[in-house]
Amino acid sequence: MSAAAAPQAEPQHDAGSPTSGATGTERARYVYLGPAGTFTEAALRQVPGTEGSQCDPVGSVITALAEVRHGTADFAVVPIENSVEGGVTATLDDIAADDNLQIRREILVPISFVLVGRRQLELNEIQTVSTHTHGWAQVRNWAAAHIPQAEFIPGNSTAGAARGLLDDSTTYDAAVCAPLVAEQTGLPVLASAIEDTAGAVTRFVLVSRPCPVPAPTGSDKTTVVVPLPEDHPGALMDILDQFSTRGINLSRIESRPTGAGLGSYFFSIDFEGHVAEERVKAALAALYRMIPGIRFLGSYPRADKLKYAIPAHTRDAAYRAGQEWVAAIMER
Amino acid sequence: MSAAAAPQAEPQHDAGSPTSGATGTERARYVYLGPAGTFTEAALRQVPGTEGSQCDPVGSVITALAEVRHGTADFAVVPIENSVEGGVTATLDDIAADDNLQIRREILVPISFVLVGRRQLELNEIQTVSTHTHGWAQVRNWAAAHIPQAEFIPGNSTAGAARGLLDDSTTYDAAVCAPLVAEQTGLPVLASAIEDTAGAVTRFVLVSRPCPVPAPTGSDKTTVVVPLPEDHPGALMDILDQFSTRGINLSRIESRPTGAGLGSYFFSIDFEGHVAEERVKAALAALYRMIPGIRFLGSYPRADKLKYAIPAHTRDAAYRAGQEWVAAIMER
Amino acid sequence: MSAAAAPQAEPQHDAGSPTSGATGTERARYVYLGPAGTFTEAALRQVPGTEGSQCDPVGSVITALAEVRHGTADFAVVPIENSVEGGVTATLDDIAADDNLQIRREILVPISFVLVGRRQLELNEIQTVSTHTHGWAQVRNWAAAHIPQAEFIPGNSTAGAARGLLDDSTTYDAAVCAPLVAEQTGLPVLASAIEDTAGAVTRFVLVSRPCPVPAPTGSDKTTVVVPLPEDHPGALMDILDQFSTRGINLSRIESRPTGAGLGSYFFSIDFEGHVAEERVKAALAALYRMIPGIRFLGSYPRADKLKYAIPAHTRDAAYRAGQEWVAAIMER
Amino acid sequence: MSAAAAPQAEPQHDAGSPTSGATGTERARYVYLGPAGTFTEAALRQVPGTEGSQCDPVGSVITALAEVRHGTADFAVVPIENSVEGGVTATLDDIAADDNLQIRREILVPISFVLVGRRQLELNEIQTVSTHTHGWAQVRNWAAAHIPQAEFIPGNSTAGAARGLLDDSTTYDAAVCAPLVAEQTGLPVLASAIEDTAGAVTRFVLVSRPCPVPAPTGSDKTTVVVPLPEDHPGALMDILDQFSTRGINLSRIESRPTGAGLGSYFFSIDFEGHVAEERVKAALAALYRMIPGIRFLGSYPRADKLKYAIPAHTRDAAYRAGQEWVAAIMER
Repeated sequence: MSAAAAPQAEPQHDAGSPTSGATGTERARYVYLGPAGTFTEAALRQVPGTEGSQCDPVGSVITALAEVRHGTADFAVVPIENSVEGGVTATLDDIAADDNLQIRREILVPISFVLVGRRQLELNEIQTVSTHTHGWAQVRNWAAAHIPQAEFIPGNSTAGAARGLLDDSTTYDAAVCAPLVAEQTGLPVLASAIEDTAGAVTRFVLVSRPCPVPAPTGSDKTTVVVPLPEDHPGALMDILDQFSTRGINLSRIESRPTGAGLGSYFFSIDFEGHVAEERVKAALAALYRMIPGIRFLGSYPRADKLKYAIPAHTRDAAYRAGQEWVAAIMER
Repeated sequence: MSAAAAPQAEPQHDAGSPTSGATGTERARYVYLGPAGTFTEAALRQVPGTEGSQCDPVGSVITALAEVRHGTADFAVVPIENSVEGGVTATLDDIAADDNLQIRREILVPISFVLVGRRQLELNEIQTVSTHTHGWAQVRNWAAAHIPQAEFIPGNSTAGAARGLLDDSTTYDAAVCAPLVAEQTGLPVLASAIEDTAGAVTRFVLVSRPCPVPAPTGSDKTTVVVPLPEDHPGALMDILDQFSTRGINLSRIESRPTGAGLGSYFFSIDFEGHVAEERVKAALAALYRMIPGIRFLGSYPRADKLKYAIPAHTRDAAYRAGQEWVAAIMER
Repeated sequence: MSAAAAPQAEPQHDAGSPTSGATGTERARYVYLGPAGTFTEAALRQVPGTEGSQCDPVGSVITALAEVRHGTADFAVVPIENSVEGGVTATLDDIAADDNLQIRREILVPISFVLVGRRQLELNEIQTVSTHTHGWAQVRNWAAAHIPQAEFIPGNSTAGAARGLLDDSTTYDAAVCAPLVAEQTGLPVLASAIEDTAGAVTRFVLVSRPCPVPAPTGSDKTTVVVPLPEDHPGALMDILDQFSTRGINLSRIESRPTGAGLGSYFFSIDFEGHVAEERVKAALAALYRMIPGIRFLGSYPRADKLKYAIPAHTRDAAYRAGQEWVAAIMER
Repeated sequence: MSAAAAPQAEPQHDAGSPTSGATGTERARYVYLGPAGTFTEAALRQVPGTEGSQCDPVGSVITALAEVRHGTADFAVVPIENSVEGGVTATLDDIAADDNLQIRREILVPISFVLVGRRQLELNEIQTVSTHTHGWAQVRNWAAAHIPQAEFIPGNSTAGAARGLLDDSTTYDAAVCAPLVAEQTGLPVLASAIEDTAGAVTRFVLVSRPCPVPAPTGSDKTTVVVPLPEDHPGALMDILDQFSTRGINLSRIESRPTGAGLGSYFFSIDFEGHVAEERVKAALAALYRMIPGIRFLGSYPRADKLKYAIPAHTRDAAYRAGQEWVAAIMER
């Protein structure tokens, strides 16, 4: 697939069948933060139309997004919030770096862990256990209670740690991983549902190159990246004011250092609403006036399909009425 | 002059020569809060092009504005702030009552008073003195010091009180009035510059029926009337926020009871800027969304011609840049 | 009663019996905006304990308040909002002028008018009618419909206009006044309940010299006067922010010119709450820091006894908890 | 040293000599994020009085802070902003977890890197290079330009990667590390000052158990942790308002997930000022009322000793004046 054709390759959210737009016979190529068997692959499998497509694990979030930027992949699936494999900060940072990516959809994956062994073992026989550091953080209490003697060996991923048990390149006794990889590998499950917090969820996003924003569904989310003017953290208040004065609720706000030095941050913000809505247009335009470095990363349907209340005076009809009233004054 | 033709009869602010637009031979008719010789007539005389026009005093602000509404006059000059003849609250209330009037220009008149006598008198001979109550309030200290024995007789106007000295229908000894009426009547001036506060100024407005708003001059003022949602005085904060978030300074804000009961107010607001400016359009549209009962009373040049600073991010260019950025997102 | 003893002469709001504190035999002296028979006298009659006291009408609000300031009266009753006799602006201005007065209680009086005649007349026989200008404004529609031929003669008060019918010093045919003065004078009632707006109410206040603030009742109001820093009407937003950030609702906010020139205003503000409450203390202290010219005019029970909701985090207990938390940090 | 005695073991910031308070002979024990030779050790060496003390590297931020919590160490030095060794998020999260730690001082360390080799090598001979991932991120451009062929091998720390070159347990050719560890090990320096961004700085903090807050210096910083009420990211605005309404500037604000699920965050905030100052007390008490889960982590001198402007109306004198004014009302 040529880079030029790729922006047309958009998921058909309504039809549930994303396809390459170049020809009917070409299929879109998806990349995801690997290896196979992680929660990211589970997220990818939720995207409609991926069954017959080429789906390739890659080594890092940065690689996945670079493939989309360069047109060698049509879509990437990467974690963006509370991932057990890490990558969230890489996603927040890399996706914010230029205007060449667009979030097309969000995907929620429930998080549960199993402990797999190199062989069938009693828990008290385990001397060493490997997994991703973030995964380990989520089973730490269980581990302290049930395998207090075990030393933690950091691994590159939960799935990689599990697969490491299949050969002799590693020496640890057990690994913490997603149920999926246990199934795929057939490794003995020594304990399951060992996560410290039940009900945890990780959020992933499907990313493509910039393309037409999908129509509003009435339950949408928009993601923007707003650099905070240096040495002026109080400016965050002015930013937030642009949302609140227009009745727009934030659903996520996270700071990230820009790398340009102490005190240099950008904010990654999700808010309720769609860029096609007047109040959102007005808020974005106002933010652009204050901070021209703002980036628009996409408007897309909420995964939870929850509807949100819009105050009457900030609905599109109210915006149009206000604009018409002013226009009438100007046309006297 | 027909009512239909009147709206075209606008003062030519640039040319300094307001003329009736209907034909070259017709002249605009001006009415003002009389009687002749008051500070309001002095204000009228400042309006370019009134020399050859018909200028008639009328008995009240309400009458003056009604003549304009009904088309029997083209323009009215009435006090709007700090008048010595009263009428300010009448102006604020009556002008706010419907959409049929527009402020075309503001006029500042310096306030100074003289004491005139029925005949040449020593100050200690004065037993009774008449003037308008508001005028009396502005010479009260002088009167307490120089004519403590004098009883105050309320009059309908400063000029009327002075003219009352010309015949026998009244019996008081002296009157406080504008220097102009002393000249016009030839009454003996017993004391001059008797105002307690030097440098006082009254503000008047020139009002017509609705017509095209004059082009911005870079030093403009806009007047609006905003009813405060009943039983919700805190809403004033939401109103003010629409100005401050767009870098718009208020130059006057006054409350007036609507007459509909305790706690029912409207606010008369002057702010820096012109409805043709984007930040003003945005603020007005936002107010309209919140409070559809808002009335636009006019954008017009400041009498003091002072320039005001507009923050870079609220200038028209910034507004256009923000709108274009959002438009570009929508046109992907 | 001596001036020195007067401050102790406070109404016993609980007991319903205000008495002079000096001795059991002395009685407090009340003055009110006269003449007798106006709505202000009706307001005075609602104050518990006034039956046996000396109650004197005086000619103006300024005189009434001056008597209290000078100690020649213990209490004054004056209109403060929507009066039919005027005086509201005089009250707002004069009471704000120094720290020597305190609002002790608010009183609500329903407003209804009758038309009385010099003799029994048909409505169409009435050629001239007198009353206070503000009273006339409240029966204008009725008059236009029922006595369109009648000329309006401004009077100093509704009661004065009615009493004028009793002798030959005046020549008008009828007067608009309160039902009370019709009863007191026995003048023939030509029409009653002629007010244009049913249910209108005027608010009066009982004023004394400064004294201990009464204990909070849970349904209280506080009145302050806040001068707006000159040439900075935007400062109003900072003022309002001090209330809203502490969950305090405003029940009235009115601007008044200070008389010091164009653009110089003060705001008269009533808000829900009592100075003994922590959130009110904090708001007042914050306002004082910004605008040291602020004046406290009193905390007193609401006439309507309505309870208002106080957000949990702004209740006294929350304030104390916050202060204790900070104190604990300081005592480490 | 006993745990009980430890809280007295505070650095004598004025004297520059932190000592254990138990006896003159006991010395405080410091732990820091190891291994030796990292930027964290460089930070530790800046703390006055550490020369003769026991200074031990530990394996993680969590271990360092746990030693202080348990009393086995008196002080810990850990990175808190923009570290090249990572640990920042661990510090932000772990220090926020309870009330048992207090920030005593901040330390700024300029960041510069060298490339050391297992032996003297030409740059184009390097096939593999190790360092900490965050360190690698800061020399990535240099590496792409000068050693594009080299594969990156993640290490646990910059110093650890360098020391790995000293024996045969590792096989990579070179390492990126701090100049200090090159000196300590004598490894050949193949290139120096290879950081992509000149002038980078990392911020560290010195932490102890809770103890008396040091006196204000006029150039202080306070750190707090504020959990954001779940599902209410807009609450951030209310939090920020408590600072801005009191003229307090923020110098850092960072979000961190609480680990309790999507959308659950806390904010780590540094602001200008000291808890002994009235405006800071007021802001902290207000935040506590809204969000009782707030944690105070310390007031301490700024490393850069910069003075900041405090608006006149938020200085201690203004606070005291406001409180006295309200107190006087209550004492009438």
